[in-house]
Amino acid sequence: MKKILNNPADALIEALQGFTKAHDSVVRLHDGGRFVTRVERKNKDKVAIVSGGGSGHEPMHLGFIGTGMLDAACPGEVFTSPTPAPIAGAIEAVTGDAGCLMIVKNYAGDIMNFEMASEMCDHQVEIVVTDDDVALLDVTRSDDQPNRGVAGTLIVEKIVGAAAENGLSLNECAELGRRVNNATGSMAAALSSCTVPVAGTPTFELVGNEIELGVGIHGEAGRERIELCSADELAELFIAAILEKLDVHTGDEVLLMCNGLGATPPIELYVLFNSAVLNLEQRGISVARSQVGTFCTALDMAGASLTVTKLDQQVLALWDEPVKTVTWQWG
Amino acid sequence: MKKILNNPADALIEALQGFTKAHDSVVRLHDGGRFVTRVERKNKDKVAIVSGGGSGHEPMHLGFIGTGMLDAACPGEVFTSPTPAPIAGAIEAVTGDAGCLMIVKNYAGDIMNFEMASEMCDHQVEIVVTDDDVALLDVTRSDDQPNRGVAGTLIVEKIVGAAAENGLSLNECAELGRRVNNATGSMAAALSSCTVPVAGTPTFELVGNEIELGVGIHGEAGRERIELCSADELAELFIAAILEKLDVHTGDEVLLMCNGLGATPPIELYVLFNSAVLNLEQRGISVARSQVGTFCTALDMAGASLTVTKLDQQVLALWDEPVKTVTWQWG
Repeated sequence: MKKILNNPADALIEALQGFTKAHDSVVRLHDGGRFVTRVERKNKDKVAIVSGGGSGHEPMHLGFIGTGMLDAACPGEVFTSPTPAPIAGAIEAVTGDAGCLMIVKNYAGDIMNFEMASEMCDHQVEIVVTDDDVALLDVTRSDDQPNRGVAGTLIVEKIVGAAAENGLSLNECAELGRRVNNATGSMAAALSSCTVPVAGTPTFELVGNEIELGVGIHGEAGRERIELCSADELAELFIAAILEKLDVHTGDEVLLMCNGLGATPPIELYVLFNSAVLNLEQRGISVARSQVGTFCTALDMAGASLTVTKLDQQVLALWDEPVKTVTWQWG
Repeated sequence: MKKILNNPADALIEALQGFTKAHDSVVRLHDGGRFVTRVERKNKDKVAIVSGGGSGHEPMHLGFIGTGMLDAACPGEVFTSPTPAPIAGAIEAVTGDAGCLMIVKNYAGDIMNFEMASEMCDHQVEIVVTDDDVALLDVTRSDDQPNRGVAGTLIVEKIVGAAAENGLSLNECAELGRRVNNATGSMAAALSSCTVPVAGTPTFELVGNEIELGVGIHGEAGRERIELCSADELAELFIAAILEKLDVHTGDEVLLMCNGLGATPPIELYVLFNSAVLNLEQRGISVARSQVGTFCTALDMAGASLTVTKLDQQVLALWDEPVKTVTWQWG
């Protein structure tokens, strides 16, 4: 394992300490590193938005804490759900009379722990589960292979974050979050594996020019292994799969996110984004808004994902609301 | 070579098209991709700030075009200086009566081409050359191994960008830029090589747990090859080398940038940043401001750099001025 770390078992707490030192005008570390909140005091009139899950996906969720998005995030150890107690701590720290909306990616451990946390609190709590990954939609699936929550989770967080800031109620925020999740599809491909610090060896192996099409953000298997193809071909594979889920047609406007999985540099992400825009335009679909960067990662995995969200007037207006978090991208 | 590309020879223009499509409220592509400017019209009352150089270091410089930083950037092919004509085009596009300040990294090709471009224009043009890399400071050097301009270039761009926005004159901006460059030191280490798209094979090789200490952002050799050490030890090696250049003492305040070289994920960057803050604190030096992320890269190289700038009241105030670029980090 070739990583910049001290003791691998301390990677999470040291990264959290570094993160909250670097951005101490935006975020604050609590309870010895068990959860992170906005610096500003909680607004009792606003629905609190809380997320979290296993670490190793940075900047998700930590980088999206701040005005217009999350009030708190609760990071578990790498690829491991946080336990209920710190999640409950995060809820208590930021929730007032308007209640709390939790955005939880669709993994059994996360859902169990976030639900248990909500039962430990006296506040009114709703859960929106994200399952934007379309990689397994066309595969015969068992219950062990649900659709996963991946990069589209950040789009749900942005929209409900803005809605909460604008004073929408808990039920309105929850309904909106579910609607955005249903209007969002994502697919990823891995060009390399990733290495969990305490494991020290790669999670899986790719031989030669193989890529894992439809890979999960913990290195879960996808649809198939194929030979590396061009950016144009990869964009076509992603978008064709995503559009099977979405009700998007000629003349519609979408939001397009091109996301790096950790080790892929900007030049490749912008090439893929450019291919994806051209692909959608050829289908008569217009890319009205976008984000391109490294947002939802699988540690040091090389590769990228595309996420498409169908836009309507409400979602577009909320997308354009201001954000002040560490990671949100201008322009 | 395992990269998300179409024809490798088209990587730059496709990335530029993707970048300017993704961020069309901030940046605009000109002359078939030869330079990029802010969207907003040039302000004739303000010194224009122009930078550029070979590509492969993204988001530098493109991601730092916008209010408070650069007016234009001129990207050459990967690791290749742009020619004088597009640089002159960029100067003409953004420069008014207050003249133009060019920030140029200390590479012979860049300096020659930016100087030739300035001679092609009727405007008053000053050049600030950045040479913040301290890797070769203690090595017996020939003229072929000057100190290179690396991540500290972005700190110079931030400070003179804010100064220009505040109405400082061309001479004042140039003097300030040189002062900030002299107060800035950087050092990097590579954990892996990088691969230029049109070459297709790695620029150099690292065996086993070797790292290249003091590597340049094109893969140039550094001080020495050593075995991978801990984040604490790496921070000590970097900071000890940087402080040999800087006039920084107990009680001083510094700006600390922890920069990923392309393939290193946030968790490792924040661990290294945390180690660096603790190291500086043990020396009685206070980290008053910071940036942590992937800003100045060497394509897909794994590794990181630290940059330290000694702060004074003027530089601190200019650092805190607002920025609206694609990449600048909040908080």
